Amino acid sequence: MAMYVVGHKIPDSDSICGALAIAYLKNQIGEEAIPTRLGDVSPETQFILDKFGFTAPELKMSYAGEEVYIVDHTEKTQAPDDIDEATVVGVVDHHKLGDLTTSTPLECWIRPVGCSNTIVKMMYDFYNVDIPPAYAGIMMCAILSDTVIFKSPTCTTADIKCVEALAEIAGIEDYKALGMEMFKVKSAVQGTPTRDLVMRDFKDFDMHGNLVGIGQLEVIDLSVFDEIKADLAADIIKLKEEGKRHSVMLLLTDIMKEGSLMLIASDNETIIADAYGVTVENNEVWLDGVLSRKKQVVPPLQDGFANA
Amino acid sequence: MAMYVVGHKIPDSDSICGALAIAYLKNQIGEEAIPTRLGDVSPETQFILDKFGFTAPELKMSYAGEEVYIVDHTEKTQAPDDIDEATVVGVVDHHKLGDLTTSTPLECWIRPVGCSNTIVKMMYDFYNVDIPPAYAGIMMCAILSDTVIFKSPTCTTADIKCVEALAEIAGIEDYKALGMEMFKVKSAVQGTPTRDLVMRDFKDFDMHGNLVGIGQLEVIDLSVFDEIKADLAADIIKLKEEGKRHSVMLLLTDIMKEGSLMLIASDNETIIADAYGVTVENNEVWLDGVLSRKKQVVPPLQDGFANA
Repeated sequence: MAMYVVGHKIPDSDSICGALAIAYLKNQIGEEAIPTRLGDVSPETQFILDKFGFTAPELKMSYAGEEVYIVDHTEKTQAPDDIDEATVVGVVDHHKLGDLTTSTPLECWIRPVGCSNTIVKMMYDFYNVDIPPAYAGIMMCAILSDTVIFKSPTCTTADIKCVEALAEIAGIEDYKALGMEMFKVKSAVQGTPTRDLVMRDFKDFDMHGNLVGIGQLEVIDLSVFDEIKADLAADIIKLKEEGKRHSVMLLLTDIMKEGSLMLIASDNETIIADAYGVTVENNEVWLDGVLSRKKQVVPPLQDGFANA
Repeated sequence: MAMYVVGHKIPDSDSICGALAIAYLKNQIGEEAIPTRLGDVSPETQFILDKFGFTAPELKMSYAGEEVYIVDHTEKTQAPDDIDEATVVGVVDHHKLGDLTTSTPLECWIRPVGCSNTIVKMMYDFYNVDIPPAYAGIMMCAILSDTVIFKSPTCTTADIKCVEALAEIAGIEDYKALGMEMFKVKSAVQGTPTRDLVMRDFKDFDMHGNLVGIGQLEVIDLSVFDEIKADLAADIIKLKEEGKRHSVMLLLTDIMKEGSLMLIASDNETIIADAYGVTVENNEVWLDGVLSRKKQVVPPLQDGFANA
């Protein structure tokens, strides 16, 4: 019985490249595996796939009765809707431990590093399987994306060493230039429907019984949002109502200035302001130095809801 | 800030030896760590500690405000009572994924093998840290205990290879003989208070909102229970009432005949009989071939409660 290897809903490059790389590894060690995805491929991910000659994994939303290997999360909100009817045989992740549970033993490769693909590289090393150059390329790009070319506070020495090793295997001399090229693709937001932008990298979290959605758009210069910011702000209010969420936040992240403008739609803005120790004006606030949703945005808010 | 390394409540040899071995490894790689325990040391574990010259880790029940490294489970019922006020920095485990969650990224070394200490050995290999012979000895004994000297269906090739490697480091020529000596210590149940026996290796599980406690006593010959079985059966009824549990089961496991007599106290015996496809008479049933609580007893019952 083949297992499906799948990342989270609204897949990012880490989810897509991780699914491809883990499936390849599993097949090499005699465990049949098929990479899949839970949603559309982002422009950044498409750029990576094109660059190294891959097609996107098959779109597959239902996994009842199947064996599933989960990539890049342990949250039921981010998993297939029928995950409780599937058998989770493994997890690779670099986030906090979420509410996913299983009824049988499994393997979990979870490390506090900047990207799931850094852990996937450890798995290749553990099993002593060679990484083909094209796979090294997509894994490297996923790490450059998740760590914002090493600028994110989530980036660790392990991520940097891993990118250097993968760049050599992939035959990429200037990986930082490739990273910037990737972020330029990511910065091309104009002409895209507002909702598509809000949902491009959007994750729902269960924060002590409250549904909280947090989106993020990472760009090279925040001025690309000048003409569309008001539309984005209006749309996250709609999104909050439609999904019966307590709050929706959208992080407009400037990777060069190294900070994020947070747009907020919330039933209780005070809990958010208090969590980050800031004053919110006109439903937005500049968070200097904040690049990482997982390390700098989610934990304070999780604690804020716990203590509310 | 030193982290505490601690196994589950009612610690078994895997929890105690794992805490000692992980703490030693962490200290070697520059992360200060202190092994602790959540309960009394069993006779089997004391035998192992004495054999290799260790004293038991410090008893410590409260971890609020501390960093904690969890060994041998991911279940809140088996964790320190105030685990939500601690920061879980890591997990080593070989069971199903339980309901433990965290608010920050962590490391999880979880594998579907027979014993946590087999995974601890992988950690030593990953960090390229030499295992001192005494540590190799206690790790090896923990694996022999959890795998019932390789007889348990939970035992994998990885566990066997690991025991062989650890035996060489520890300088133990006949590890199977040492394993039998260990199980003889475990079989000396007469003269021990009934409740102490019931609780010696007892784990609570949350099965779809129902609290279910499952104890296990592994012996070389079930005849040691001839005179005390009625007392044990009476005591699990009491234990069920005291803890407001839905069910309490006690597995009397014969490691030579390779099966378990299950004593049952339950609000709904049918759910248990159906889970294992057996007929229960006089609140007990012989389960041929059943040696493993985690692989053969918990999953069918978990599914039974899910579908009830």
